This record gives sequence, structure tokens and C-alpha cells, in this order.
Amino acid sequence: MRSKILLDEEEIPKRWYNVAADMPRPLDPPLNPATHEPLKPEDLEPIFPRSLIKQEMSTERWIDIPEEVRDVYRLWRPTPLYRAVRLEKALKTPARIYYKYEGVSPAGSHKPNTAVPQAYYNMKEGIERIATETGAGQWGSALALATCIFGLKCTIYMVRSSYDQKPYRRSMMRVWGAECFPSPSNRTNAGRRILEQFPDTPGSLGIAISEAVEDAATHDDTNYALGSVLNHVLLHQTVEGLEVKKQFELVDDYPDVIYGCCGGGSNFPGVCFPFIPDKLNDKKELRLVACEPTACPSLTKGLYTYDFGDTARLTPLLKMYTLGHDFVPPGIHAGGLRYHGDAPLLCSLVNAGIIEAQAFHQREVFDAATTFARAEGIVPAPESAHAIKPAIDEAIQCRKTGETKTLLINLSGHGHFDLSAYDAYNDGILEDYEYPEELVRQSLARLPKV
Amino acid sequence: MRSKILLDEEEIPKRWYNVAADMPRPLDPPLNPATHEPLKPEDLEPIFPRSLIKQEMSTERWIDIPEEVRDVYRLWRPTPLYRAVRLEKALKTPARIYYKYEGVSPAGSHKPNTAVPQAYYNMKEGIERIATETGAGQWGSALALATCIFGLKCTIYMVRSSYDQKPYRRSMMRVWGAECFPSPSNRTNAGRRILEQFPDTPGSLGIAISEAVEDAATHDDTNYALGSVLNHVLLHQTVEGLEVKKQFELVDDYPDVIYGCCGGGSNFPGVCFPFIPDKLNDKKELRLVACEPTACPSLTKGLYTYDFGDTARLTPLLKMYTLGHDFVPPGIHAGGLRYHGDAPLLCSLVNAGIIEAQAFHQREVFDAATTFARAEGIVPAPESAHAIKPAIDEAIQCRKTGETKTLLINLSGHGHFDLSAYDAYNDGILEDYEYPEELVRQSLARLPKV
Repeated sequence: MRSKILLDEEEIPKRWYNVAADMPRPLDPPLNPATHEPLKPEDLEPIFPRSLIKQEMSTERWIDIPEEVRDVYRLWRPTPLYRAVRLEKALKTPARIYYKYEGVSPAGSHKPNTAVPQAYYNMKEGIERIATETGAGQWGSALALATCIFGLKCTIYMVRSSYDQKPYRRSMMRVWGAECFPSPSNRTNAGRRILEQFPDTPGSLGIAISEAVEDAATHDDTNYALGSVLNHVLLHQTVEGLEVKKQFELVDDYPDVIYGCCGGGSNFPGVCFPFIPDKLNDKKELRLVACEPTACPSLTKGLYTYDFGDTARLTPLLKMYTLGHDFVPPGIHAGGLRYHGDAPLLCSLVNAGIIEAQAFHQREVFDAATTFARAEGIVPAPESAHAIKPAIDEAIQCRKTGETKTLLINLSGHGHFDLSAYDAYNDGILEDYEYPEELVRQSLARLPKV
Repeated sequence: MRSKILLDEEEIPKRWYNVAADMPRPLDPPLNPATHEPLKPEDLEPIFPRSLIKQEMSTERWIDIPEEVRDVYRLWRPTPLYRAVRLEKALKTPARIYYKYEGVSPAGSHKPNTAVPQAYYNMKEGIERIATETGAGQWGSALALATCIFGLKCTIYMVRSSYDQKPYRRSMMRVWGAECFPSPSNRTNAGRRILEQFPDTPGSLGIAISEAVEDAATHDDTNYALGSVLNHVLLHQTVEGLEVKKQFELVDDYPDVIYGCCGGGSNFPGVCFPFIPDKLNDKKELRLVACEPTACPSLTKGLYTYDFGDTARLTPLLKMYTLGHDFVPPGIHAGGLRYHGDAPLLCSLVNAGIIEAQAFHQREVFDAATTFARAEGIVPAPESAHAIKPAIDEAIQCRKTGETKTLLINLSGHGHFDLSAYDAYNDGILEDYEYPEELVRQSLARLPKV
């Protein structure tokens, strides 16, 4: 039976889909952190190019993808939609399981979908260098690739603990010509201040964001780039779902449930936003399930309110589900899902009851990842495996009920740089973390008053 | 411009191509190591299934691929043929550069092309377990995947130095359910003997082969599998070249030169053997270039004679280019190319002047790999990068002469598990090794007298 549903290169989408045009209610605006007034485009100009600021604030339904960006997408897009024939057989399920595989990009995840246009627009507006932060390195390596392709310099502040413990995504950044510093570094005021106080700190994403933003704000030729949360990032990721819709048409099928993992929320919106108009109109029974870790359950346990995007309280205030901007989640192996908040567009749709959310423990997630790898071959990233877990559960449920549901997993990346986590799992030393209720209560008490 | 030439899944080859049918002169037979008589099929039965022994000795031009094997190939085949649009632009060359990318397999290389049929035929003949050796782990991980899919157990003897220093391919083997032991181990007589004499030995491929063969020969339910050198291995790899021929037809082009890296010789024959009939008939100007490391230059500096396949002198004698079965090559990062000999079918064609060979230093190979990664995104395995180096040189030559040659690189795998080698290169500490002439002279003096 056919395993892969492929599209021709000419079918790479020509336009991104902007869900802001179809929101059931208008998005609450981001607020200036000093004045608490709605953010003005010019507030963002010190660190973003105008074309991206325009996309960030746009409510146009369709936004053209520049040909130069499509030409780079050709290196790995359209990505395959797989029918998980062997997984279905292993589970003895009548359900039809599909997965969209974004791990075929050179950086191994969905992140280049937005890194490439971000680098492109910065290049077009004369920027020579982009500064960013990265945790485990998915985003940093994607931006290193994208800046390399458009001839820009790239400076990456990588959380020190990951810089020391997970060197290989950093090695990829070097291959693509980016410079990468452990954060906190002595290159910024923010970094130097922290190092003075805490010379042995392992760093955090919050600190790294502060360093990258400061670097961009204090150098004329330099901008900042973010790999998640913001509207324009989610916009760029919709190439995933737009391709999936065409691929389902080719096999005359349509999903009953779409699963995607959710950290800051760029991957899951990427696959499911293009289905939102259907869901709002004729396909009301379509379920959209955002999957997150029990250890960092922003969508399932957070408050829906204004909060900072970073620990250091430098970013605009965003209306989102949050566990509090200074909440530090336990050290689960799905590093990309350790974020206290979520993308405002996604959160608004969760709040409106259009998208649902579920949380999972990491051991059950690795159980699912192993079942998947042994059937389909691909070793999934721990983040992506959060979407596999409930899909397998649903498929087993279908075996019991006899239902022939169509399930779609968004497989956002491979696990080639996460094999020490699989070793921990196979050694039986992988810990489950309960929801840290008391910690979250404390950090929520420190939310900004808006 | 189009980057990828894709084939539909239905175009996965239905038959393997057996170059033994088209050899300009018959292959010198393998010899029984005890009697020096030509090997009989039954000599191989203790460790191989009959169907593979039949393929090993066959001179039929076409051999059917079982449907169950094609069904597994569907997980990643047909693999893409890329037009290296961005590399051509970076090199300002009028040459057309293509690369066949085998890194899309779940194990990240071409090795599953033969691991899958080998596991299949063993399963069909009632074998329950396969034992094998692996160096850096490309082959071991491919066989782990294949045995997992067909429900066989898998025991892998991994050279201890790699077991300790390169844990991640071993981690993949575990994900797919294989057991992996550092070699020498205390599980075999061969291993125990070595451990008694040299308790701190880092191991070698030769020792690991001895352990795997002994394990297979001493257990009724267990067979042995090899990932290179043998005729049936090369046969299975021809899916690469058969697909490439169809892909070139789709764009109405045809290669002037085909480059592939060569260790034991399974990857390069895989892509170039299906072109041999053309070369012998109407396309005499087609160049087929086997690329090897200067540190282990079997094809360019070895003797064409009978030698053992392993250090411990257990295997049949094979007629091949060899540097001597106890030659230990310097520790280059392209671990897959550190083999003293080469596949007999390949060697015979080199000896007949139909295939040529070139050797390269590792620094120039990493230069080429970096140029490639910065243009095309994909970070190549160090082995595969040996084929990129001369292709880039030829493309630059075309820039000077204005020739519009068509160059094909066989990109056998990605470098996700080789990033420490890229770090060494970027740190400027990667060594070039001269051809170890004196060492080779010594090991050649110990060739068996046949």
C-alpha cells in the first residue's frame, strides 16, 4: 500500500494563510511594556524589518510568498505526507493514520519554514546581521541555515547548559557559518550583569532573549529574529497545513483529528490554521488537539491573561495562556516545549473552544515514540512525539469501537540530536514530572498588573 | 529552477540489476581459506540463507525484488535526485551538478537498501536472529532497523572505540530493539581470547567480524550479515542507480561523470553498476569515478590479488585491490572508508579500466563538504563528501573551459552523527594523513600465498 503522498515542487504554496482574517473575535493587541498602550509598528522597528512588522499586524487572509523564498523552500518542500501503514498494522487499528514529516529540512525540523523568510526580508531591507537566542538549538540551527543562504551574518546566544551538553546543533550552526556564544555572555550588558551576580549560572531562554534583543537594538546593521510565538512566525508555518490539505485531496481523505506538539506554538498552528475556516464552516466535528508536556502545561493549566514573553520583562505584553514569565519548567527532554506561554493567535482559538489541548508525561511520550520508530523507522524528536502519543491512543480506541477515523500527526522533526534522551528512557532513568502546581501558583502571583 | 527530481512510489525498481551478467571477463571465484579451492555454496550455509547464497553466485542479469521488500523500501524510496542549483550558482559553473540523496532513509544512509532484503530472506528461511559487526554504526543501525521491521532479533558487535566515542548510532540501534555489545566482548571465544591478551584493546573491525561470524556459526537460529563487499550486497544497492537512470530520463539529461565514495564498495557500485551496460556499449565516454581517502587508498595504491576480508583470516579469500588484511589505516573521520580491500566486482571493473579511482585528503574533503552544506543545506557524511570534492573540482574546471558537463554525485548519507569531525575541521585541528607507504609495504608482505 502507498506510504507517501508527495506533491510536485510547483505545488509549494504561493501564499501564506493568515488566520487573523478569520478569528471569531479580534486578537487582543500586544501592549508596550512601559506604557501598557497597544504596541505601535514603530515600537518594533529597532529590531524587526518593516515587512515583517506589517505581516505581524496584518489581517489580510493571504500573503504572497516571495519567489526567492519559494526557491529556498524547494530544497526540502513540499514535505511528504506519510500514510502510517506499518503503524496501523502494528496497532491493529481500523483508523487511518497519517503524518506530515517536517524532519526532511536540512536543519531537521519545521523551523526553517520561518527562518528562511525572516532572513530574506531582513536581507531585502539592508540588514547585515541577525541576532537570536536558542535553547537546544533547533531554532538557532534553522536561522544559521537561512542567513547562510541569503548571505547574512548570524549571532546566536545559546543557553549555556545546552551549549555545554548538546554540542551538535551548535556544530551545525558553525558548518553554516554562524557564530554561537554561550549565554549569559560578556558581549552584552544583560549578560555581564548576570555573570557578575551568578558566574556559574546555566543560563535560561529568558536571559538569552535579553542578550539577543540588546545586541540587535544596539547595532544599526543588526536585527532580531524569533522562532515562535509571534503572528508572522505562525503565518510562515502555514505552508505545512496548506500542503497537507492538497495531499489529503490527492487521496480523497480528510482528517477527523489533527495532533501537533505545542511549545511556543509555531508548529501546531502551522499545520492546523489552514483548517480553521473549514472547522468554522462545514467541518465542525474536526478536532484540533494541541499537545504539551505535563511539566509545562501552559494551555491546559495556565491563566489566559497578559504576560511578558521573556523572564527579563523586556518584551511587549502578550495576551496568552501563561504559567508566569519567571516560571522555570522541570528539565524534560522535549526542550522545545519548555516555554511558559504560547502564541497569542493559538491561545485565542483555544480560549474560544476551537482548539483543544492535552498534556502528557514524558515516559508515555517516549513509549509512543518507540512504538512509532519500530513501525515507521523514523526516530521522532521528543517534542514531536507528544503528538504521536494521543494519536496512538485514539487509534487503539478505534480498534475497540471499530471506527475508521482519519488521524493526522504533525511530525515536526527527527530525533537525531536527542538520542541521549532515548538512552535515558531505555536505561529506565527517565523521570516523569508532576505538574508543579505550587511553583506555577507563585509565578502567576508575579504577573504584571494590566 | 526545479531542485528535486522525484519518482512516484510505484517506480521503486521491481528488479535488482546484477552486473555479474555483463562483466567483460568472468569474476575470479572466492576461495575456501583452508583449501584454496573455489568456494562451494554449501561452505556458506552455516552463516547465510540459501536465497542470498544463490544471489551471491548468480550471473542472471535481473533478480526480482520481493514485494515485501519493496513495501519497506516505500518508507524512504524512491530517494530524490537533486539538481544542485545553488551549488552551481556558488561555483559560477556552467556544469550541471546533480546528487542522489540516500540520507533520507530512517538510518540516514544507503545501508538499509541491503539490510532490508537481507533481514527479509533470513526471516523467510526461519532464522530468528542475525549477528553482525559495525564500526561507526552506519551498518549496525541499518540492520537494526531492518530486523526490527521483520521481527528478527539482532546482535551487533561494535568496535569498542566507536562504542565508547560515538554512542548515538548505538542509541538508534537500541530504539529499534537491537542489542549492541562493545567488541571484543566476553560473549565469544574470539573476543575472550583477545581480551585475555589485550584487556584494554580499542577493538577493530576485523575482531568484530570474527565475533559476529562465530556467534552465527555456533547458533542454529542465527545467521550473519555483511553490509559491503559481497556480490549480493552490491546487487541490492543497484536500486540507487536504477532510480537515477529514470530520474535523468525525466529531465532529458545523462551524466558525463558519476562520483561515489568507496570503502568496502557498496555505495558507489549501487549507483554506477546500472550504467555499466551503457558504458560498455554506446556511452564509452561516461566516466565512473570511485573516491577514496589518501589514508586508505586500496583502489589507487593496493595490489590486485587474493586476500582475506578480515584481520583474523577467517573469511574466504577474495580477489581484490588490497592494502593487506592486517593493515590498520590512520584514524580519519570517514570511518566507513577505512577498509583494507574492496568489493571483488568493483575491483574487477577497476582492473579492466572501466571504473577509475581517485584519492583525497580529509581536509580538502571537509572544505568541499562545507561549500556543499552552505549552498545546498544538507550536511554530508564525511564518507559521502569524498565524492563531492572531485565533482566541485570538475565544476570549477568547467567554469574555466566553458564546458557544460553533467556531473552526478552519489550522496550516500547525512553527517548528523559526524558533527564532532566538522568541529575538528572548524577548530583547525583536523589532520591530513599521508599515504602510509611503509605500513602498506609491510602488510602486503603478509598476503596469503595463493
